[in-house]
Amino acid sequence: MSIERVAIIGLGLIGGSIGLAVSEKLPKVRTSGWDFDPDVRRRAAERDLVQEVCENAGEAVGNADLVILCVPVGAMGDAAAAIGSSLPEGAIVSDVGSSKASVAKTLAEALPGAIVIPAHPVAGTEKSGPDAGFADLFNHRWCILTPGEDAPQQAVSDLAAFWEGIGAKAEIMDAEHHDLVLAVTSHIPHLIAFTIVGTASDLEDVTRGEVIKYSAGGFRDFTRIAASDPTMWRDVFLTNRDAVLEVLGRFSEDLTALQRAIRNGDGDTLFDLFTRTRAIRRQVVEQGQDDARPDFGRKDH
Amino acid sequence: MSIERVAIIGLGLIGGSIGLAVSEKLPKVRTSGWDFDPDVRRRAAERDLVQEVCENAGEAVGNADLVILCVPVGAMGDAAAAIGSSLPEGAIVSDVGSSKASVAKTLAEALPGAIVIPAHPVAGTEKSGPDAGFADLFNHRWCILTPGEDAPQQAVSDLAAFWEGIGAKAEIMDAEHHDLVLAVTSHIPHLIAFTIVGTASDLEDVTRGEVIKYSAGGFRDFTRIAASDPTMWRDVFLTNRDAVLEVLGRFSEDLTALQRAIRNGDGDTLFDLFTRTRAIRRQVVEQGQDDARPDFGRKDH
Repeated sequence: MSIERVAIIGLGLIGGSIGLAVSEKLPKVRTSGWDFDPDVRRRAAERDLVQEVCENAGEAVGNADLVILCVPVGAMGDAAAAIGSSLPEGAIVSDVGSSKASVAKTLAEALPGAIVIPAHPVAGTEKSGPDAGFADLFNHRWCILTPGEDAPQQAVSDLAAFWEGIGAKAEIMDAEHHDLVLAVTSHIPHLIAFTIVGTASDLEDVTRGEVIKYSAGGFRDFTRIAASDPTMWRDVFLTNRDAVLEVLGRFSEDLTALQRAIRNGDGDTLFDLFTRTRAIRRQVVEQGQDDARPDFGRKDH
Repeated sequence: MSIERVAIIGLGLIGGSIGLAVSEKLPKVRTSGWDFDPDVRRRAAERDLVQEVCENAGEAVGNADLVILCVPVGAMGDAAAAIGSSLPEGAIVSDVGSSKASVAKTLAEALPGAIVIPAHPVAGTEKSGPDAGFADLFNHRWCILTPGEDAPQQAVSDLAAFWEGIGAKAEIMDAEHHDLVLAVTSHIPHLIAFTIVGTASDLEDVTRGEVIKYSAGGFRDFTRIAASDPTMWRDVFLTNRDAVLEVLGRFSEDLTALQRAIRNGDGDTLFDLFTRTRAIRRQVVEQGQDDARPDFGRKDH
């Protein structure tokens, strides 16, 4: 792998985890970083998220052969503008955003002539900020690269090798297909979780206190997802609108069908679906994408 | 507490956990049990889920002062019929079903003259069967008792004390209100999870393999809930139909509003909701209803 100096722009959960993972797993690679927020820069320095926390974006990327933009997808344009004039020739510019077609377009426009290879590590927690990152976040998780047709093959290979070096498994995918797949596996699940948590806290006949008290019946799982970073998620829905609306339409149809089955007392339809979904869980666990212990191995409180 | 002999009818996750919890936390209380399925009875005996696994329901309840029916809510009538003629006078009959108004009605009809106090421990995992139970399942979880107006106060107190003896916190509630609260905190979250897992596995443009591979983006959480016992959940939706349909209507309205916000690029509406929902998570954790560690403390795989 020819990447020796990585610059991380944005030092929250993902940026910080990349920095920590590099320190631990790729000790020969040098890291520099910058964050828009001075408090985050200070905390990043205290936690050694990167070896050198810089006072401006240009300084951070000045020597880099890989620059990773770890900011909400709505802030990619600003981040690209901040590094533009200092970007070394031949450096790879990548990102970690959850929607890819819009990011590819934004970065190509903001950085004409640069080698842009958008990427998305499918990993995270509900926490955010410079205290949230940890070195093992990407272990056994997939990182999807969505290079454009004109991306140099060597640069794609180098970026894939970098992600594998910090624990992830790399995969190449078309940006539009990525956006549809992630609408299914991430964006719609988040949208639904945000919605149900909002619905539950707005009811007149059930108090907020009751909702929290009896949340172990299933609701609490949704509160974890609905605790994810608001800025990041607002931007995801705004930038992956078409795929999100398409999958949401399918979900709503299926929910209406189940609603009808409940209204009609059609137990067979319910039982058949619930049996099928149980099998999917088995596959998720078998393929190493979740903790096999009951209840995720949650601790008793 | 005056309960000395507990009979458990149904030796799956909940019944087995009650038996194990009694052994560990109330060593003076004797337990007997029965399950409709001979294989479950055999496994229950091997695991010592109860002290005496009986060959028929009547034998199991013959000496009991508390009988707990731990069967799917759709099987309550059959379970009550199986114990009816052997039920000692003065014994309390309770259950653990997730819907309460329908169970109260079923048990009152099947066991005229008996002391029936329906109950619902808000606890569980996605596993089911005689191997799934464990003694700490009810620790710090609420058990909701829904006594009818004519229930003897002493029996209600005894049942509450029993649940507190095996680790739970007891609460008294009206059956109809229980059914609405649980529709919000448990039944609708499950219905939504079953639906989205079904939707995701039926799409034409995204393969099942892709859905599983990239499930760490949020989807995998839903697969856990959607792996819950199909029979139990079919019965919950059929017996708590009105409350489920009412809350589902509210959820659908809210989801439509978010869909419109996404279509219109209304980021403020999204951001405001996502900020509110993050606060709810904090309360769930503060009130000891979930694991405070990021990502439930899931293990890397």
